[in-house]
Amino acid sequence: MSEEYEVSRQNKVRQIPEKAAYDKETVHKILDSALLASVGFVQDGQPIVVPMLYGREGEVVFLHGARKARVIRLLEGTSTACMNVTHVDALVYARSAFNSSMNYRSATVFGSPRLVEDPDEKLHALRVITECTMPGRWDELREPLENEIKQTGIIALDIESASAKISTGMPDDEDADYDIPIWAGILPLKSEFTTIESDDRLIEGVEASTVIHAMENKRL
Amino acid sequence: MSEEYEVSRQNKVRQIPEKAAYDKETVHKILDSALLASVGFVQDGQPIVVPMLYGREGEVVFLHGARKARVIRLLEGTSTACMNVTHVDALVYARSAFNSSMNYRSATVFGSPRLVEDPDEKLHALRVITECTMPGRWDELREPLENEIKQTGIIALDIESASAKISTGMPDDEDADYDIPIWAGILPLKSEFTTIESDDRLIEGVEASTVIHAMENKRL
Repeated sequence: MSEEYEVSRQNKVRQIPEKAAYDKETVHKILDSALLASVGFVQDGQPIVVPMLYGREGEVVFLHGARKARVIRLLEGTSTACMNVTHVDALVYARSAFNSSMNYRSATVFGSPRLVEDPDEKLHALRVITECTMPGRWDELREPLENEIKQTGIIALDIESASAKISTGMPDDEDADYDIPIWAGILPLKSEFTTIESDDRLIEGVEASTVIHAMENKRL
Repeated sequence: MSEEYEVSRQNKVRQIPEKAAYDKETVHKILDSALLASVGFVQDGQPIVVPMLYGREGEVVFLHGARKARVIRLLEGTSTACMNVTHVDALVYARSAFNSSMNYRSATVFGSPRLVEDPDEKLHALRVITECTMPGRWDELREPLENEIKQTGIIALDIESASAKISTGMPDDEDADYDIPIWAGILPLKSEFTTIESDDRLIEGVEASTVIHAMENKRL
């Protein structure tokens, strides 16, 4: 097992703690297989949840938005942010409503947001985010313009604490319920990329590269 | 177009406002096609984001947790909660990093959380949540026990304001970039249920009903 995040009041999984994991490898793997993070912050004392593009590098998560976006301005001025990513893997049909549930992989990260202002670090963060989302694409793209980097807002979230919660397998019914003649089991949910669709305005003869094709039929 | 949510400081979409929608039909449709909501609340002044099971009935969203779960206790004591659900529909490969993005359907809801305590209302909420997640299943299940209802925490969120944001189609590149010989287009992401897997402990001869089979191969 890899190194673990320290368990504190902030990241402790309280409900069904046997499904919790605090090792970095598990948390990283969940973070790396999602596309959007749900990021929470506080505005005027009220919670706001916003889906954001992101990319992870080691113990840093880079969050992406427009420089003037509310989420970037608010995260900049806040001491702690929380982000969650969750994949649903299946519906779990138990014999009672009480035990019906889902199988999922969920990771929650807490950290201090820091606005990335140095143009070189911003460029680096953009590369990390692009590569996490579209592996191999960065080197194919035209270079970012100075003005584009200026208009981009990047928040670096140093992971201070984190946890994962994973639920798998068949329903866990009450002992007596196994005698009820009712079907139980799971219905898996599959999230996968299909096949590329080309822009109408492509220059004739331009085709997708192997790094693009490598993403086709890939499962999240 | 259906009735609209009033646009206020709370729910106004600021970035790329042309992708925003405030009509109830659009918001409801996105809410109804997701399985988990990312719910944000404030603990000790800090934001927490938790994925929760939910179901919508009219302008009420019922959120589900264990009665003693932190999220239920905290939502109970809070004046405003925020929830977001987002489907990613495609990666959008533009000709620059700046214009690379995703296609998505996102809905954000704000409301005052209210703990549901009346056992009849709780039972009703459980039915709504179950039916939203597993249509037709409620009537197949054994009846909830009094103790199970007690152990269940339900928060009713009356939708006070909401917004949707939807991004579709091909990349929107800078005019000059269309002359660059680089592939651009989209890579769709498909999330769909596959086929059921039965519990090993089924009573012999028990089979899944038509309401269960109707969920197979269904796309989110």
